[in-house]
Amino acid sequence: MAGNTFGNLFKLTTFGESHGIAIGGVLDGCPAGLEIDLDAIQKELDRRKPGQSAIVTQRKEPDTVEFYSGIFEGKTTGTPIGFAIHNTNQKSHDYSHIKDSYRPSHADYVYDQKYGFRDYRGGGRSSARETASRVVAGAIAKQMLAGIKINAFVSQVGDLRLEKSYQDLDLTLTESNDVRCPDSDMAAQMETYIKAVRKEGDTIGGIISCVIQNVPVGLGEPVFDKLHAELGKAMLSINAVKGFEYGSGFEGVKMKGSAHNDQYNSDGSTKTNHSGGVQGGISNGMDIYFNVAFKPVATVIQGYETIDKEGNKVQTQGKGRHDPCVVPRAVPIVEAMAALVLADYTLLNRTIQL
Amino acid sequence: MAGNTFGNLFKLTTFGESHGIAIGGVLDGCPAGLEIDLDAIQKELDRRKPGQSAIVTQRKEPDTVEFYSGIFEGKTTGTPIGFAIHNTNQKSHDYSHIKDSYRPSHADYVYDQKYGFRDYRGGGRSSARETASRVVAGAIAKQMLAGIKINAFVSQVGDLRLEKSYQDLDLTLTESNDVRCPDSDMAAQMETYIKAVRKEGDTIGGIISCVIQNVPVGLGEPVFDKLHAELGKAMLSINAVKGFEYGSGFEGVKMKGSAHNDQYNSDGSTKTNHSGGVQGGISNGMDIYFNVAFKPVATVIQGYETIDKEGNKVQTQGKGRHDPCVVPRAVPIVEAMAALVLADYTLLNRTIQL
Amino acid sequence: MAGNTFGNLFKLTTFGESHGIAIGGVLDGCPAGLEIDLDAIQKELDRRKPGQSAIVTQRKEPDTVEFYSGIFEGKTTGTPIGFAIHNTNQKSHDYSHIKDSYRPSHADYVYDQKYGFRDYRGGGRSSARETASRVVAGAIAKQMLAGIKINAFVSQVGDLRLEKSYQDLDLTLTESNDVRCPDSDMAAQMETYIKAVRKEGDTIGGIISCVIQNVPVGLGEPVFDKLHAELGKAMLSINAVKGFEYGSGFEGVKMKGSAHNDQYNSDGSTKTNHSGGVQGGISNGMDIYFNVAFKPVATVIQGYETIDKEGNKVQTQGKGRHDPCVVPRAVPIVEAMAALVLADYTLLNRTIQL
Amino acid sequence: MAGNTFGNLFKLTTFGESHGIAIGGVLDGCPAGLEIDLDAIQKELDRRKPGQSAIVTQRKEPDTVEFYSGIFEGKTTGTPIGFAIHNTNQKSHDYSHIKDSYRPSHADYVYDQKYGFRDYRGGGRSSARETASRVVAGAIAKQMLAGIKINAFVSQVGDLRLEKSYQDLDLTLTESNDVRCPDSDMAAQMETYIKAVRKEGDTIGGIISCVIQNVPVGLGEPVFDKLHAELGKAMLSINAVKGFEYGSGFEGVKMKGSAHNDQYNSDGSTKTNHSGGVQGGISNGMDIYFNVAFKPVATVIQGYETIDKEGNKVQTQGKGRHDPCVVPRAVPIVEAMAALVLADYTLLNRTIQL
Repeated sequence: MAGNTFGNLFKLTTFGESHGIAIGGVLDGCPAGLEIDLDAIQKELDRRKPGQSAIVTQRKEPDTVEFYSGIFEGKTTGTPIGFAIHNTNQKSHDYSHIKDSYRPSHADYVYDQKYGFRDYRGGGRSSARETASRVVAGAIAKQMLAGIKINAFVSQVGDLRLEKSYQDLDLTLTESNDVRCPDSDMAAQMETYIKAVRKEGDTIGGIISCVIQNVPVGLGEPVFDKLHAELGKAMLSINAVKGFEYGSGFEGVKMKGSAHNDQYNSDGSTKTNHSGGVQGGISNGMDIYFNVAFKPVATVIQGYETIDKEGNKVQTQGKGRHDPCVVPRAVPIVEAMAALVLADYTLLNRTIQL
Repeated sequence: MAGNTFGNLFKLTTFGESHGIAIGGVLDGCPAGLEIDLDAIQKELDRRKPGQSAIVTQRKEPDTVEFYSGIFEGKTTGTPIGFAIHNTNQKSHDYSHIKDSYRPSHADYVYDQKYGFRDYRGGGRSSARETASRVVAGAIAKQMLAGIKINAFVSQVGDLRLEKSYQDLDLTLTESNDVRCPDSDMAAQMETYIKAVRKEGDTIGGIISCVIQNVPVGLGEPVFDKLHAELGKAMLSINAVKGFEYGSGFEGVKMKGSAHNDQYNSDGSTKTNHSGGVQGGISNGMDIYFNVAFKPVATVIQGYETIDKEGNKVQTQGKGRHDPCVVPRAVPIVEAMAALVLADYTLLNRTIQL
Repeated sequence: MAGNTFGNLFKLTTFGESHGIAIGGVLDGCPAGLEIDLDAIQKELDRRKPGQSAIVTQRKEPDTVEFYSGIFEGKTTGTPIGFAIHNTNQKSHDYSHIKDSYRPSHADYVYDQKYGFRDYRGGGRSSARETASRVVAGAIAKQMLAGIKINAFVSQVGDLRLEKSYQDLDLTLTESNDVRCPDSDMAAQMETYIKAVRKEGDTIGGIISCVIQNVPVGLGEPVFDKLHAELGKAMLSINAVKGFEYGSGFEGVKMKGSAHNDQYNSDGSTKTNHSGGVQGGISNGMDIYFNVAFKPVATVIQGYETIDKEGNKVQTQGKGRHDPCVVPRAVPIVEAMAALVLADYTLLNRTIQL
Repeated sequence: MAGNTFGNLFKLTTFGESHGIAIGGVLDGCPAGLEIDLDAIQKELDRRKPGQSAIVTQRKEPDTVEFYSGIFEGKTTGTPIGFAIHNTNQKSHDYSHIKDSYRPSHADYVYDQKYGFRDYRGGGRSSARETASRVVAGAIAKQMLAGIKINAFVSQVGDLRLEKSYQDLDLTLTESNDVRCPDSDMAAQMETYIKAVRKEGDTIGGIISCVIQNVPVGLGEPVFDKLHAELGKAMLSINAVKGFEYGSGFEGVKMKGSAHNDQYNSDGSTKTNHSGGVQGGISNGMDIYFNVAFKPVATVIQGYETIDKEGNKVQTQGKGRHDPCVVPRAVPIVEAMAALVLADYTLLNRTIQL
């Protein structure tokens, strides 16, 4: 209810504030008998961690996950998997610019209004640091979903947009550059642009695209919990996300039905895939693909005027080491959330037929 | 779990197939003591019902709702509100074109794959007829949310796009035309266009925009159940929806943080509203606004080739009386789903502080 | 949340007041492809219905269930099963003795306090009439659980206690008498006693025992949702229930561990069954057995003093046709709730192992 | 779903195996602004911890809880409270008697059947060690429920039964002896008896009674989630519990309605309290009282024959330091679970009326 749990059968609950003692979570419902590759989990965390390249925040956090339960002799036991990532970067910052004033387009103001007060250190619970816990659970989900391939990548930064269809990209190149864009030329342009934006003390938005291959037919529930509705919620729950579209998306509204409809081949596959791999909320076996829009990071290293708790105007400035563009580090988060959704529906689908 | 329930505290469960005996639902958790305006509920149903104008399906269904429980002496009792809408239009259609073959971009194929068989009459559970139950519950939610104004309207049909900002529109005009577009000129163009598309036996997509005013600060949960994430899921769960964006949305990715950030006035309101009324997943008291993309209706009255259950090619054609464009009738559905989300968070918000 | 839903995967939501238009429910998550025996469902309702014998209330209600959805061509479709039982016995009673005063040991007072007002007709939502909806869903659960045998029976009425172990009873005799006690002699004594109590205008309590045979190993979840914990909750949620014990129960507290422990046979079965078929919250394949204590019905046809809404003393008397002893009619309710629990865990168990 | 979460609005999820790295949990939904008394939490853990007296297991575990999140400047923030208790007693035991064989009346066999394998060390997840996490969350719940007094105490050990009504006991004496029985004479007898049982290498069962005072009217939901049903589930979810009864309980079945009914005083209180403070599933403001039956601990230090995984007979013996009687240490667990139930319903009750 309080919104810190995701999933029903494959269920993740997270806890932790940015600068508290630890963040972490409990993954409940992971089936017993899954061999866990701990290195693969840490590798996903490393894709998300700060300080990994020149175009992300230079904050240092090793983000080492400790597992407390639920794994025995290398395999999941069917009992809850408790884990924690201790915050090593809790040095006594100067938080005076946050403590008593509200940074624009951050959650400071609404937290104070909703809860009466807040843990202001580093954004507290509203920090995207929480997503590290999602990446841990998502990495386990990926291992459970062995055959399914989830490929997220950066397709837009500011105005720089990768116009190619995903079919024309080599998705194995995503990790070959710091931006995580599978087109080297575009990646280079994006990198140069992000550096320029950072130099200005500013930030810029972007889009992550995701393609999911080898999805079995039948995942997703027909009414409120449509597969794409849950994917949409999953993505919109990631910090800074402003939009989600799948298949033909917003462009599809301009099409006529006769052109938009995906005609069947005799094996049940479709000749086109405007549906984006989902029909009536249920996967149809074609590739699932979707776009996720991220706004520019709110923390800019430029002076600005804002208000304090009493509504007085105060002059302030972003401090610390922040991301000029969030999308390179958000790629593994998008994949993790997609994996959590698919894992949940995979288990649920076992209960559908007599 | 099986996906027919929406909400946690203000919780709607729906049932019913397009051509079964009745559709309906149970609304649980509606607080006691709410005076129910039954006419207002029926009016919302009338906004959604078939046959209401020249640009929607000419099928006739009175869509009269019967309440079975939970309302006594004109007020909610705090017990579940059970209701049903009997299907009056169950005449013995010829379903042979649906029964054994799969209509492109419909849910026929995936239902058969998922469940082993399906109620093929009129699309069964996958029909948008189910949304009538949502409108009933949403109408009750609206009554509970008295002060909050939820205004959905059609902002795009095909390429015809209303470029004005919602602040420059008179939203009271939405119901003044059949398209439900608050700009009369644009509404006329859209209507002409929809009629032309119908004449071709084709269909066209569109966008519904929604503006929610007078939202109190503090609605929404900070992590997985962010207000906009739940709104997004709610919208994506409506039949034919392909995308959702709020605030600056997909366009916002092109902006820099310094421009995107919403500076505060001394009363906590913001000078701009790129945030779309939500910060960190929690309402900040500014207008909430979002766009919902609808694909063109899949049922086209044109001949096409598809496959039957055995994968054989069959020649077929859409029959019956279908909508050439879904958005005019979907306006009350968008509002209903928004109302359900807000009602749920309104109740939850009572539990947040000591 | 508001407590009108039971189960997670095999999930029943009920609605309806005693003297409203209809009671009913939605059963969501029943797997597709189950052939439904409608007669068997009605037969279960008939075991619960008023007026069925000389020792129950003589109120007349046919309790005919109508199914609105989720069943097609005789089989479940995997979509929600909506159903209703219209109340035929809504004649304009004189409710003055209930409307403004609080009957002792009824829910009148607490409903008014909790909700601000109440539907006072026949007890409204607090009436055991609601359990008819449970019997409908339970009957479907029974059909899904084909191999499992759920046998509830009356084992005590007042001081009249069936001392025999269930192994020494012929459980097929339960339906051979009006009391639903599988021992004919004891049944006759109980029947005589109940009639005598009724003649006094009084009521008497009783115990229902339940034996579940052929349960597969592995049902139940190990911590909060132990099989017996959920069974316990299910039983305690039935009107008038005051206690639940399984296996050795309250008597078991007097035993030493060396005597209480159930030693294994080489096939995993146990020589004794103090565990009651459940170990660590999980079924072990042995018979599950438990007892459910029902208090005497609160409505007595004797004059008594009580209070009205203002706290004034009022003299009143039970009216209408009430059960002198609730256990004969509660036997199918106990079975229905047990079936709902087992159906839910049966589905969940499909998700436990990789 | 997988059963490691308790509560809806005040929601505890626990993790951890007896001899894993740590046990712990996440408490989500605790309202913001609650001042947390950490010493009081530790004190509750100390009431439950091993080695606290001569009549419990002499195993040494400090059971020190660390909080990771959700508490800031001494108060809850409204975000999830993550906590862990590291297991210090993980020395390399000899588990050969458990690893390959099934201890009678333990969960060894069913875990292997359900999950395919198990963490056999010290009982793994099935160990009552998990309840320490419940005590942590329950202690927070108690602090939230400031005015409500929850008093559990031992009322029976083997045949030794405290016959006095709770009104005739001084419940402040519960902590004055190692048994936690508020009657000194009976406590002394029980203590002597437990020591004798332990000397035999055997164990004995017992009953914990619980009285809850100052409960506001209106807690509990009317149908499936009746207050006593949820309390019953909470208690039955505690290791070794075999039965639950409240108010008149199993004895009440022998009473007639005219005697059992609780007549009202003019202030809404009742002259008697056979209802046990709950009517129609909703608290009525009178004392809530109930009994919880605990079977004798299954681990006996006596030789016995059992089976191994292949069904071969093996001769074995309980090892280690186990409780001869579980009830003294279970008193704080009963209180914790009661507190969790009441906290959940307290929050839910804020949403019931308009």
